[in-house]
Amino acid sequence: MAMRTTRKQNYPEWYQNVVSEADMAENASSPGCMVMKAWGYGLWERIQRVLDEKIKETGHENYYFPMFIPLSFFQKEADHVEGFAKEMAVVTHSRLVTEDGKLKPASPLEEPLIVRPTSETIIADSFAKWVKSYRDLPILLNQWANVVRWEMRPRLFLRTREFLWQEGHTVHATYKEAEDETVKMLGVYRDFAENALAMPVIIGRKPEYDKFPGAVDTYCIEAMMQDGKALQAGTSHFLGQNFAKSANIKFVNQNNEQEFAYTTSWGVSTRLIGGAIMSHADDDGMVMPPHVAPYQIVFVPVIKKADDTPRIMEYIENIKAQLKDKTAFGEKLRIKIDNRDKPSVDKVWEWIRKGAPMVCEIGARDIENNGLMVKERIFLGQPEGKKIMKVDEFIDSVGERLVALQQIMLEKATERLHNNIRTDITTPEAFAAYFANSNEWIEDGKQGKVAFVRGKWCGDSETEEILKSMKITIRCIPFDQSGTTGKCLLTGKDATMDVIYARSY
Amino acid sequence: MAMRTTRKQNYPEWYQNVVSEADMAENASSPGCMVMKAWGYGLWERIQRVLDEKIKETGHENYYFPMFIPLSFFQKEADHVEGFAKEMAVVTHSRLVTEDGKLKPASPLEEPLIVRPTSETIIADSFAKWVKSYRDLPILLNQWANVVRWEMRPRLFLRTREFLWQEGHTVHATYKEAEDETVKMLGVYRDFAENALAMPVIIGRKPEYDKFPGAVDTYCIEAMMQDGKALQAGTSHFLGQNFAKSANIKFVNQNNEQEFAYTTSWGVSTRLIGGAIMSHADDDGMVMPPHVAPYQIVFVPVIKKADDTPRIMEYIENIKAQLKDKTAFGEKLRIKIDNRDKPSVDKVWEWIRKGAPMVCEIGARDIENNGLMVKERIFLGQPEGKKIMKVDEFIDSVGERLVALQQIMLEKATERLHNNIRTDITTPEAFAAYFANSNEWIEDGKQGKVAFVRGKWCGDSETEEILKSMKITIRCIPFDQSGTTGKCLLTGKDATMDVIYARSY
Repeated sequence: MAMRTTRKQNYPEWYQNVVSEADMAENASSPGCMVMKAWGYGLWERIQRVLDEKIKETGHENYYFPMFIPLSFFQKEADHVEGFAKEMAVVTHSRLVTEDGKLKPASPLEEPLIVRPTSETIIADSFAKWVKSYRDLPILLNQWANVVRWEMRPRLFLRTREFLWQEGHTVHATYKEAEDETVKMLGVYRDFAENALAMPVIIGRKPEYDKFPGAVDTYCIEAMMQDGKALQAGTSHFLGQNFAKSANIKFVNQNNEQEFAYTTSWGVSTRLIGGAIMSHADDDGMVMPPHVAPYQIVFVPVIKKADDTPRIMEYIENIKAQLKDKTAFGEKLRIKIDNRDKPSVDKVWEWIRKGAPMVCEIGARDIENNGLMVKERIFLGQPEGKKIMKVDEFIDSVGERLVALQQIMLEKATERLHNNIRTDITTPEAFAAYFANSNEWIEDGKQGKVAFVRGKWCGDSETEEILKSMKITIRCIPFDQSGTTGKCLLTGKDATMDVIYARSY
Repeated sequence: MAMRTTRKQNYPEWYQNVVSEADMAENASSPGCMVMKAWGYGLWERIQRVLDEKIKETGHENYYFPMFIPLSFFQKEADHVEGFAKEMAVVTHSRLVTEDGKLKPASPLEEPLIVRPTSETIIADSFAKWVKSYRDLPILLNQWANVVRWEMRPRLFLRTREFLWQEGHTVHATYKEAEDETVKMLGVYRDFAENALAMPVIIGRKPEYDKFPGAVDTYCIEAMMQDGKALQAGTSHFLGQNFAKSANIKFVNQNNEQEFAYTTSWGVSTRLIGGAIMSHADDDGMVMPPHVAPYQIVFVPVIKKADDTPRIMEYIENIKAQLKDKTAFGEKLRIKIDNRDKPSVDKVWEWIRKGAPMVCEIGARDIENNGLMVKERIFLGQPEGKKIMKVDEFIDSVGERLVALQQIMLEKATERLHNNIRTDITTPEAFAAYFANSNEWIEDGKQGKVAFVRGKWCGDSETEEILKSMKITIRCIPFDQSGTTGKCLLTGKDATMDVIYARSY
């Protein structure tokens, strides 16, 4: 029972449908903002839990800095403010008064405050106070926070004026240590995207013109959505001494000399949820990767006679009790018994739309057989997606099965990525012809009409304009360079650098 | 080795010292805001983890609503806006431009946005969309968020312009169900304060004049700080149909009639951290309740000869490995090995200042004895606070011991509370004389000079002014009323209502 709109019919509309049918989020009355509902926020909570552990394992501690940044802080780093000035929410007053029956802002602030679009400037201000000597270094911190960027074309999860994220900020004594940190955290993001979200990514460096404002180098993970477009899923910035100089983060090194420190920053956001949707959802709704699904197993009682209710519920409770100490991905299983007063078929369809990895239907006959019916979301509508199992067998195998389902999702997404990186386009003409087509949904295991092109780039600044006119972007300069020579796909000049070209979100 | 200022010398200054010496937080460059550092934010993470579980166990799900609330939403509920209008951060512009080399706000918004001081209005707006029929009710939700109230006299944790909190919001079909929810969540807060923070509280209802703006009734938990002042540690509001009427939350009831719904809201904030400090910290620094301590056990190697380092570290790692599956409060133990390059005596003092429940010192001699030295923070300086134990004995007993330490902290705080609620003050004269004294630090197990008075109140509106002039507040009308008659301690009139009078934060 496909949704109103399929991927093939209209991919952007299909995306909106999934978000709404899975009840993950909706547009808020505050323009450009979203309300994250239980199933969408539940996914974010899982992302937080898993990623937070990785961030802590790599030696970082969580802090919390104010969301208001004095305007003057942005005066200090010219590139940084230029990058963000167009999309800043500015607080100018601290109270409301009623005039002619209407509320109006009053008590103007001496200095306007910016609602953080990102926290480099205010954290650098603290680093400058805390860092005196090489003995104080490194400081490795992270914060989970909301940030604001005044997007003009908001889209749920992908681009909202307020969004949630984590931002890591570190300060180091040497160039090399800071650069290593930047690359290390990019690796943490890649592992997380692949293992927790089953979303394979290409890692690399951004071209000069697409760096984070104020960075020396920006690294990124780029994922491929089912329509062949790229989604920047996480970034890690090597900031060199830029913010250290603007905020005066100085330390005495081992030779007893004053030196500016080196900083980094790196973040992922609720945008990952958009990425997970466009990586895995199908025409029936969301498909949650088991590792991060708010519930991994949902039990739906199928009650034909009201009299059966108590024994069916007891039977289900008993199965749940037996699953108490079972684990998947090193954690206890997340189980829901859906006992709402609604027809079971409607409930099952709700959980399919939400993409719960396993929905188990249990009726009176299952009790007689000491069994249950297990439906696996990723195999919906296929014969292998519907299994009648014995309870014991289910209990013994379910943890491993969830891990296997996750693996299948990763393999499917990886196959799509690999099948859709064209490397056979070698001339500007062929390149232009390729991208003259529009993106459309890529059927599983197939090659889509337009996706990524891996090819040469000369690196000239004029190419930025060519890309803009073609509505294409360079997603990254991948870490694994071939070292070969060829023609730049934009200018036809000789070039050695491999880059990933794609349309993008 | 007491800190610069003791409780007796200057209680407010002592409080600032604890926060700073324990490295929990500091004032930010954004006026009135704070930077929560790893040890302070770590405590907040523990509070979140424990309380979030309780909130979910009682059937609530986490959502996330925008932090920007359109100004017009506040026009709808007159009491509500009156309560908050004086302390609202107002966003009026969405970009910055450079003029004469200076950054200035530009692109004024059509409608100013308020940074949420609390979210009743914007959540009611969603409730109005979601609720159609009694079948949609109740909706039980919670969010973890930052909020802003423009405090003029900020103090770290107790009162900052931006703070972190959770706010529960629910909507129900009946008056009774909503009122029961309000009281139930108050109970969750009381249990949490007592069991997780070892902070006993008095529960009751706020007098009319001190209700949440827009509420029918406000309930609260009130704790006693070591100086005898009260701290409102959490509130739960029964909102009746007030917000339902202003936001038009209507539903069709079982009799097929349109009816306004009933809502509640309830919250606790980073203020709890201030409460935990002023409940437990001593002249040597913070004392963390083991249930919520970011680390419960800290190992400090005591190295006299550099050669010993590897075997001491290995010995500690080995103890840590043996603690891997040990638990306290139903969770794995939180353990830190402090191997920083610093004198061990300095490290031990840092952990004392931070209030780690157990600090274990381990040197070469301990290896020979297969033992370790365990220092318990709450018994610092007392003979029983320093124990040499065998490793096996430590490993077997440490989980239970942490629970026992928590219990001792709760008993101590409970004893203080009980010893310092005066019930023998029965006339306005005696009452005025009692509060003519100032608060000062209450020594453990003793009665302080000024603390709480439990006595009669006539409830007349004139009493609000009397209280103000005396700088006293009615903390609550406790649930357990004696039902006796006496004289109002403010007016001398006959009265039956028992209230708690106190100075407060």
